[in-house]
Amino acid sequence: MSAPVSTPAWTAEDTRRMGEALQLASQGVRGANPLVGAIAVGPDGKVLATGFHRGAGTAHAEADAIRNAEREGTDLAGATMYVTLEPCNHTGRTGPCAQALIHAGVGRVVYAIDDPHDVASGGARTLRDAGIAVESGLLGAEAKRLNERWLVAVRDRRPFVTLHIAQTLDARIAAEDGTSQWITCPSSLTDNHALRARIDAILVGSQTVAVDDPRLTARGEDGGLLEHQPLRAVMGLREVPGAAAVRGDDGRFHHLRTQDPAEALALLFDLGARHVMVEGGSRIIAAFLSAGLVDELIVYQAPILLGSGKTSVADLGIRTLADAQHWDWDESGGGAVRRLGTDLRLHLRPASASGPARPLDLTRPISEGSN
Amino acid sequence: MSAPVSTPAWTAEDTRRMGEALQLASQGVRGANPLVGAIAVGPDGKVLATGFHRGAGTAHAEADAIRNAEREGTDLAGATMYVTLEPCNHTGRTGPCAQALIHAGVGRVVYAIDDPHDVASGGARTLRDAGIAVESGLLGAEAKRLNERWLVAVRDRRPFVTLHIAQTLDARIAAEDGTSQWITCPSSLTDNHALRARIDAILVGSQTVAVDDPRLTARGEDGGLLEHQPLRAVMGLREVPGAAAVRGDDGRFHHLRTQDPAEALALLFDLGARHVMVEGGSRIIAAFLSAGLVDELIVYQAPILLGSGKTSVADLGIRTLADAQHWDWDESGGGAVRRLGTDLRLHLRPASASGPARPLDLTRPISEGSN
Repeated sequence: MSAPVSTPAWTAEDTRRMGEALQLASQGVRGANPLVGAIAVGPDGKVLATGFHRGAGTAHAEADAIRNAEREGTDLAGATMYVTLEPCNHTGRTGPCAQALIHAGVGRVVYAIDDPHDVASGGARTLRDAGIAVESGLLGAEAKRLNERWLVAVRDRRPFVTLHIAQTLDARIAAEDGTSQWITCPSSLTDNHALRARIDAILVGSQTVAVDDPRLTARGEDGGLLEHQPLRAVMGLREVPGAAAVRGDDGRFHHLRTQDPAEALALLFDLGARHVMVEGGSRIIAAFLSAGLVDELIVYQAPILLGSGKTSVADLGIRTLADAQHWDWDESGGGAVRRLGTDLRLHLRPASASGPARPLDLTRPISEGSN
Repeated sequence: MSAPVSTPAWTAEDTRRMGEALQLASQGVRGANPLVGAIAVGPDGKVLATGFHRGAGTAHAEADAIRNAEREGTDLAGATMYVTLEPCNHTGRTGPCAQALIHAGVGRVVYAIDDPHDVASGGARTLRDAGIAVESGLLGAEAKRLNERWLVAVRDRRPFVTLHIAQTLDARIAAEDGTSQWITCPSSLTDNHALRARIDAILVGSQTVAVDDPRLTARGEDGGLLEHQPLRAVMGLREVPGAAAVRGDDGRFHHLRTQDPAEALALLFDLGARHVMVEGGSRIIAAFLSAGLVDELIVYQAPILLGSGKTSVADLGIRTLADAQHWDWDESGGGAVRRLGTDLRLHLRPASASGPARPLDLTRPISEGSN
């Protein structure tokens, strides 16, 4: 978090390596943790190891790179570690990266943006105290854009929000008689349950509970419960019936007595949730979209038409096309558009205020002013 | 159209080559003409030339293969020509293929299905009369499935129908205030206009004319008229205003005074149209879908959300999910799912009665009973 001791004079090589670290970062999974990439380069300019962060509960990017180096028997002594986020200083699920970098003997650490967490910050200072050269801010704008929504969530102390929609080609999530199981194909369901097993909480509206009586557990293809189960949250003022499947008997059920998305997220944050998936229905979806509280949108679209029934997104208060909500295709975590069984899986993030996100372009000339 | 003189005893090699011809066929463009592929194999089993049909007005598959052979200076004398549709006998825009095959000196022609046109049939007889061995029916079921909807249109003496939808992620084709220009991106518009320049007629409802006053011409990126212009048809009982842009002054405008899709298609067929693109609005779209008169669906989907406004598909009379209309992804003519500028372009065909179309699988064992 402290300013660099001196203004760094980065070389084109530095910029190229950080660009590669950003590319590595973008292979990660969007969610409660940021997208981070790391690349270790020897004094001779040779790449010694690379790593990236695969999502909450997995190794941080630097740790991943160090582990990959160890596996290959590669010595990182004196190496430069390019990493897109300030190395952490805290002992989380994966141990502090600053200590791991000191232990590995790297000579220099260049990172793109500071860690916004109070708990984690201080990594740069720890590294400097150990005699390692530390520079920050290289391709900082690019790294910020890559993790724009995550940074907002961290700043606002709320969970990162993934919105899940399973719809027909004509954006229906249920037929006129209310039937909705299953609009999407088994592969989409499996994918959705794998997502459920990676997040901290699922959130639906009380209307959805009344109509569909969902379990909201994370289940495998055989129907059995997966190891990690998210919290199951229902928001709304309507009572949740005592016999509702969502209650379960594992203490993970929570009724959030509010109609306000921000309040629901605050309650979930206090329950420890850092990544929430909103699964519907259409009015809850619209409430989160209208409030600007969706960080990531995953749409499973089945090649079927209904022509009537419930549409996926209820009224957003938008009256004219110029006010439409714009989204960018999100290539992280497996791609923006994928065929999944007979369905399409679409992955999007809100269009950044600065216009549609450009893909990282490492072929453009590197100018002095790129930072 | 005549039965083979004797029951052909096809070898695994024959089946493999016809499978390759079907793969070539599927690269073509769906529309007024069928998807057809051809492959010429020498007496030594070596492939001499391949070809496929690229859509109305372009060379037939056999002619394409013969032309490719000529270009390479390859002699087709004594070759076997595998072609997925009976060679035509008529002098159309590209000359009769039967004569071309005779002229090229091929020794044997194997085709998958008979040409269903009265005007074109007789190609097999002409070839036989010239002393060429002719066999038919190899992978006939596969070739029929590839051209299922085209065969229906030919049988019913109606134009092939492409349905065009330009919608948001939540399937809106206009905002609440009626604004709809432009939901999709410039690349999608360019693609749509290139389609318009390939078909015989565009059809919209009179409501769309009243609301949007479209020109329905095929225009290039610079806004200039493309060389080929389709007929511009408006269906419905409502009068088309004298000042409506769709009228133009080139005599290509037609008001079809009917609300019945089948009747509109019959009128267009009598006007010479063999490929019609339906461009909306939602009630016309629903009328064609409900009548089972859509052969191909092209959806441009923009990554934006509206939450209200007009949905792309009006009521289809479907009340429950089990009655939903199913579609198959269509890889022909450039792929089922493509990124086009900031949009997605989806290409689908009605699910065949025999279940979802399997991709051609040339790796599976070829059994005697595969026909």
